[in-house]
Amino acid sequence: MLVKNLLGARYKETPKDCVIASHALMMKGGYMKYMSAGSYSLFAPTKRITNKVEKIIREEMDRVGGQEVLFPVVMPATIWEESGRYTSIGSEMARFTDRNNAKMVLGMTHEEAAVHMARDIAASYTDYPFMIYQIQTKFRDEPRARGGLIRVREFTMKDAYSFHTTQKDLEEYYDKCFVAYERIFKRAGAKNVVAVKSDSGMMGGKISHEFMLLTDIGEDTLAICSNCDYRANMEVADCITHEIESVKEDLTTVATPNVKTIEGLKRVLGVEPTNMCKAVVYQENATDDYVVVFIRGDLEVNETKLRNYLKTEVHPASGISEESGIVAGFIGPVGFNGKAKVVFDKSLMGIESFVCGANQVGYHLKGMNIARDVGEVEYVEVAKAYNGGICPICGKPTITLKRGVEIGNIFQLGTKYTESMNMTYVDSDGERKHPIMGCYGIGVGRLVATICEEQHDDYGPIWPISIAPWQVEICCLQSTDENVKQVSDKLYEDLTKSGVEVLYDERDIRAGAMFADADLLGVPVRAVVSRKTCERGVVEISFRDKTFKGEVALDTACQDIVKIVNELKEKFEI
Amino acid sequence: MLVKNLLGARYKETPKDCVIASHALMMKGGYMKYMSAGSYSLFAPTKRITNKVEKIIREEMDRVGGQEVLFPVVMPATIWEESGRYTSIGSEMARFTDRNNAKMVLGMTHEEAAVHMARDIAASYTDYPFMIYQIQTKFRDEPRARGGLIRVREFTMKDAYSFHTTQKDLEEYYDKCFVAYERIFKRAGAKNVVAVKSDSGMMGGKISHEFMLLTDIGEDTLAICSNCDYRANMEVADCITHEIESVKEDLTTVATPNVKTIEGLKRVLGVEPTNMCKAVVYQENATDDYVVVFIRGDLEVNETKLRNYLKTEVHPASGISEESGIVAGFIGPVGFNGKAKVVFDKSLMGIESFVCGANQVGYHLKGMNIARDVGEVEYVEVAKAYNGGICPICGKPTITLKRGVEIGNIFQLGTKYTESMNMTYVDSDGERKHPIMGCYGIGVGRLVATICEEQHDDYGPIWPISIAPWQVEICCLQSTDENVKQVSDKLYEDLTKSGVEVLYDERDIRAGAMFADADLLGVPVRAVVSRKTCERGVVEISFRDKTFKGEVALDTACQDIVKIVNELKEKFEI
Repeated sequence: MLVKNLLGARYKETPKDCVIASHALMMKGGYMKYMSAGSYSLFAPTKRITNKVEKIIREEMDRVGGQEVLFPVVMPATIWEESGRYTSIGSEMARFTDRNNAKMVLGMTHEEAAVHMARDIAASYTDYPFMIYQIQTKFRDEPRARGGLIRVREFTMKDAYSFHTTQKDLEEYYDKCFVAYERIFKRAGAKNVVAVKSDSGMMGGKISHEFMLLTDIGEDTLAICSNCDYRANMEVADCITHEIESVKEDLTTVATPNVKTIEGLKRVLGVEPTNMCKAVVYQENATDDYVVVFIRGDLEVNETKLRNYLKTEVHPASGISEESGIVAGFIGPVGFNGKAKVVFDKSLMGIESFVCGANQVGYHLKGMNIARDVGEVEYVEVAKAYNGGICPICGKPTITLKRGVEIGNIFQLGTKYTESMNMTYVDSDGERKHPIMGCYGIGVGRLVATICEEQHDDYGPIWPISIAPWQVEICCLQSTDENVKQVSDKLYEDLTKSGVEVLYDERDIRAGAMFADADLLGVPVRAVVSRKTCERGVVEISFRDKTFKGEVALDTACQDIVKIVNELKEKFEI
Repeated sequence: MLVKNLLGARYKETPKDCVIASHALMMKGGYMKYMSAGSYSLFAPTKRITNKVEKIIREEMDRVGGQEVLFPVVMPATIWEESGRYTSIGSEMARFTDRNNAKMVLGMTHEEAAVHMARDIAASYTDYPFMIYQIQTKFRDEPRARGGLIRVREFTMKDAYSFHTTQKDLEEYYDKCFVAYERIFKRAGAKNVVAVKSDSGMMGGKISHEFMLLTDIGEDTLAICSNCDYRANMEVADCITHEIESVKEDLTTVATPNVKTIEGLKRVLGVEPTNMCKAVVYQENATDDYVVVFIRGDLEVNETKLRNYLKTEVHPASGISEESGIVAGFIGPVGFNGKAKVVFDKSLMGIESFVCGANQVGYHLKGMNIARDVGEVEYVEVAKAYNGGICPICGKPTITLKRGVEIGNIFQLGTKYTESMNMTYVDSDGERKHPIMGCYGIGVGRLVATICEEQHDDYGPIWPISIAPWQVEICCLQSTDENVKQVSDKLYEDLTKSGVEVLYDERDIRAGAMFADADLLGVPVRAVVSRKTCERGVVEISFRDKTFKGEVALDTACQDIVKIVNELKEKFEI
């Protein structure tokens, strides 16, 4: 491919709306064009990259026995009504009515389609297990589209669905897919990927993992133990607290006019936040009913855990009404009379003496002891894990919080969909049962953008050779010089014939401008041909990641470059 | 791949709603599952086939300098409003409103997206020509979905868009794409494909061709000259009529009570339909205004030509009102006073004497001469071509009508989209101009279904090896026999290692059932291993298309089969 024929502008200025590097570089490098919120057209370099990612995914899915299929993007609402998700999913699902007035939806995931495909035919236990996958366009009417290809509304996704007759069989297969995912990300060149336990959210099911690429721009926070293998998404990470020194005291009421914050109380009363019992107020989305969470003063509420405990969606209270009887700023568990559900976080356990609100404007309590002053309460874990917290596996205070982008996920779905959609098979014992499902997703574009985020410099992306749009870029400086041009042309032709994917820049432009474009295109191996190199009978070779710079003899340039490329490819099993 | 692991049921009964063979066979063979009107999930064999078709398409598009890109499926209405097609296209375009109340559409074609991608960057004549293409899901809310994958609402399409600075450059590129299309269809194994001139319809532009696979189940009718190269879609085919003998006569009125048809008039008056001037009444869709077409009695009106002449959509009159002054059944051009546009077809030219309606209930005219009795009229060609009509190229009466399915189309679009969407470039003369576009489509699923329609027998599809889901199927009869099973397993392993795509059936079922399934899967080369063949030290080889049946020695079976496969592949340049 000649650079001069490549559609797409490359430029220096960072577009104003780009706040992360990968987004900016992929805009400046002519990789994508904004069409509407969370929706981009992809230029040839990006399509070449995604085609390679998709090929790696196919190979690894096939390796674990997957069968590639294709489900429709547009589906009838009826199958989503069967599973119950037509109503349980909100406005992120795009819906329309077709010419026959039938309700249709755009697929944001395809569990329903997978069950629909398989339910009439996998009728006997001998038909199991099996796994079907597709690589297909999805649309999610995402309210927070941002970060270029990292969070979009329309995207290409590999989604896989496995069906099993026993939980054990699912678990074994789940482990295989886990390994397949590790292989996919490794082969695609992603470096800092960790798998974390996660919340299953709208997918249902119990056990699930997210594959996270660690990067500061990540939207997810992960709790990672630096001493052992424990890793979890903040949403589900256990919060195990340090022991706190405290001595039982008498309960006393203290005047604290206008002191409503943890910081204020610390200043006024000289008590550490760890010895305070803080109240955080939520409302249930469905009813606006209040939920008061009592939690240790230094900790925060994990809303996912709270939602899972309450089995309903909640949001931070938008305001506290007078008739609720809740005294904002001075809420405490002793004599609490507000109209609200009350939740006690586990972090309060074992502490003998707290400062807390007195449920009276301008007053707090000191020396509050829950068992003595409140009575027996149920403790629930709804606190966020924190830096330096205790690892639930190794017990060391070595929890570190890191940020990451989710590039894949795997779920043990159980029978949520096969039950609701009435998919059954006859087991070896003659009984009719619902198969057990797993599902496995990877967002192709997001993976690409995240790798760019992880591997770039100020000048452009540094694509791993396994997914790079081309393997070698030939820069022909002084292409107006007939000899230089001939040498370059021949190298381009020879390399292409040898099966190397070559991008060839023979435009009559300044070397600086040519190299700037090459940096933006991020091709791993660069071969420079110029008057100088021709005179010396060499071709200059450098790697985009700066790990190598050298020369090869012009006579053997083609073979030498082929060898270099093959060595680079080997690492990725390409 | 083991047949026993392949998801999809194969069965004998033809589903009731299948009226064409390819649809029935692809349902019976476990290729697809109906989800909603015109929408199917595709099982692994179909996906393997379409992946191969897509690979061939990519290779040929790349060969003519195409760059693969990807446009969104969901597009903002705004870019369709720019081109004017948001209103000009009717209910076949699916529309919805997103969470921000923005109007969105599902892409049924991507001219707007192509211009949107290119318009900011191809600013100089030196950036031209270029061609971008994608292979992507499209949705058309088709009222007449039928025939399995032949006419669906959701489908995968390759659509390409080229941009040029001169009409000559477009024409040269158009010719290249024409050849690329011929290569694609040949390599995919389609046999009876012809390119015909066609009507550009909603795409705009002047010159266009459809690639038609000739088959009796085709919805399109083609006029093909059996003497020369002339081929055209009926919609645009010239209708050149034979000379008709006729002698000038006096105009007389004859009573023809209750005789309103051509047949009736022939019986009553003894005049041939070629010597009658028939009236066909239409209404304009927008206004319901009447249009009366006078045409020779033996010919039919070509509504596409009529629409193009009138520059508005029309439909056969749903009834004729009294106030229109049109006397249904007795309409004639002499003294016609109806409220209607009148169109005279070219077929009436040069005939001296007609029978026609007298615009009076119960009466016709004889001896009507248009020049004498009506005056000077404009003749327009709005008649359908007919079997035995005269070829506009070679002049012989050798037009034959055949039926075909459109499997691809190419259009010279001109500046319809670049003008309406204001895409310009600066030409070498310094002037700002609109680039000239071409576009080029292929429906992947339809191509596959049409090849199945063309190449099948009663027992299943006969896939060309270039697109077959697998190249070889090993049928292991008596798989319970340890030796037979071992021999088969080894052949499967060896062939797979040699890079052959093998489907392996080692189920413990009757030979008849196994062969029936194999017929439905349509794999080109079958290798049968059984107790009998093992005893004789051979493997039985047969081709699905019945052109070969023989044996190879067990010792050399792998090499021999590889050789056979390679020979078959060569024909398709695979």
